Amino acid sequence: MTNYLLERPHTLISLTFFAKRYESAKSSISEDLAIIKRTFKARGIGILQTIPGAAGGARYIPSIDEKEARSFIATMTEKLSEKDRLLPGGYVYLSDLLGKPEVLRQVGRVIARQYLDKQIDAVMTVATKGVPIAQSVSSYLNVPFVILRRDSKITEGSTVSVNYVSGSSERIEKMELSKRSLKRGSNVLVVDDFMKGGGTVNGMRSMIEEFESKMVGITVFAEASFEGHRMVEDYTSLLKVDKVNTLDKTIQVSAGNYLEKVFGEE
Amino acid sequence: MTNYLLERPHTLISLTFFAKRYESAKSSISEDLAIIKRTFKARGIGILQTIPGAAGGARYIPSIDEKEARSFIATMTEKLSEKDRLLPGGYVYLSDLLGKPEVLRQVGRVIARQYLDKQIDAVMTVATKGVPIAQSVSSYLNVPFVILRRDSKITEGSTVSVNYVSGSSERIEKMELSKRSLKRGSNVLVVDDFMKGGGTVNGMRSMIEEFESKMVGITVFAEASFEGHRMVEDYTSLLKVDKVNTLDKTIQVSAGNYLEKVFGEE
Repeated sequence: MTNYLLERPHTLISLTFFAKRYESAKSSISEDLAIIKRTFKARGIGILQTIPGAAGGARYIPSIDEKEARSFIATMTEKLSEKDRLLPGGYVYLSDLLGKPEVLRQVGRVIARQYLDKQIDAVMTVATKGVPIAQSVSSYLNVPFVILRRDSKITEGSTVSVNYVSGSSERIEKMELSKRSLKRGSNVLVVDDFMKGGGTVNGMRSMIEEFESKMVGITVFAEASFEGHRMVEDYTSLLKVDKVNTLDKTIQVSAGNYLEKVFGEE
Repeated sequence: MTNYLLERPHTLISLTFFAKRYESAKSSISEDLAIIKRTFKARGIGILQTIPGAAGGARYIPSIDEKEARSFIATMTEKLSEKDRLLPGGYVYLSDLLGKPEVLRQVGRVIARQYLDKQIDAVMTVATKGVPIAQSVSSYLNVPFVILRRDSKITEGSTVSVNYVSGSSERIEKMELSKRSLKRGSNVLVVDDFMKGGGTVNGMRSMIEEFESKMVGITVFAEASFEGHRMVEDYTSLLKVDKVNTLDKTIQVSAGNYLEKVFGEE
């Protein structure tokens, strides 16, 4: 049952279904669910909502407890501060971290934690760096993800395109989204790997408007400190790159506003 | 324990660790592992390798049984045959399927099943459509994935580039991979969403050679029937798009060679 629930987050599974699948009485299924519920809570795996009664069932809401979230963000802070991550132009190399399954699982759990009681219909990101993050979050929220692209692909069919101002370079750029990939009236969560001026995220906001949908939140893996007017105000970041020094190749990284936003002041 | 094992595929967890974590005797941990092992097997979740003795432990190898794999491929065959998937040029729209967490989980399990006894150090794909597949496979094999890109990005640092002939259009194209993303001497599994002439996959093979690494296998979600010389011979496909008729907008899809390769003749 544990595996069955873990593989289907945010889905109500009825007692009747479990009873049939495991050829057991509903009462013993209920008892087992109570044990799983306590274990999930004790281990910080997530919340097991149980609906009592013969017509009831259980729903697994993935989560992460404060201690584990803090420890993960602390580890990432250290990792990001590594000297050899600094790239020309003050960019920070992230591809290795965002290609590791164990890192992506935690990023997904941490971000999903923030929105566990929000109605979300889709996770949106822009190709290509944001994709692994979107996929992991989408897996824990159990909703689809959609990918905006900077270059139109024939395999997307008809697309809607928006122009946006790239915050860091102040160029006008274009992004496209396949017309059929998002339903009108969706509640959309925007995620991305890195945010500087917020231009890309702002472009995603325009796209969501084009689809007559609603942006529920923005969470980025890392934000860079940005001098000047940021195009996006209300966002969450797991990490913050405070300062890069290209001369002695040092990177100063601290925790983003996630911990405060989600768990409040220490 | 089930959750702990499920989240760390292909990792040996010692009895000592579990005994400490759950404050139990090693003997009762052993008994519990035996139960989990039977359940994993009975439910087709995967293989729980248990190493006996006080110095032993357990390792979870994700898998999928033949029945579930067949049923998943049958469902996908139906889905892909849907009329409105046909795009101009005979392409098939896949983005919705490859954006659904439950589909991606199954794709990952199915592909990982094929390589469960092979030594694999990294999963490789090319941006952007292959990324979700690579990520899911990488999660079940618990190894990193690396992404080749057609456009160089400043956030990748130094890259190695290869030229390749795009099979379908016979153009010369270029792909790049960040120098630090793959270690020399790696065993690499190549995955992609769609293969026509095999040019892209062949490009990935050249890239693997550039990194003095070894290509262990190629598995694609769908192959298109291709008239002419295919650049890649030994590959696995979950699905096969046999024929598209752009006039009456029909798509003929059948199972690829996966089932035969992995489970043998029916």
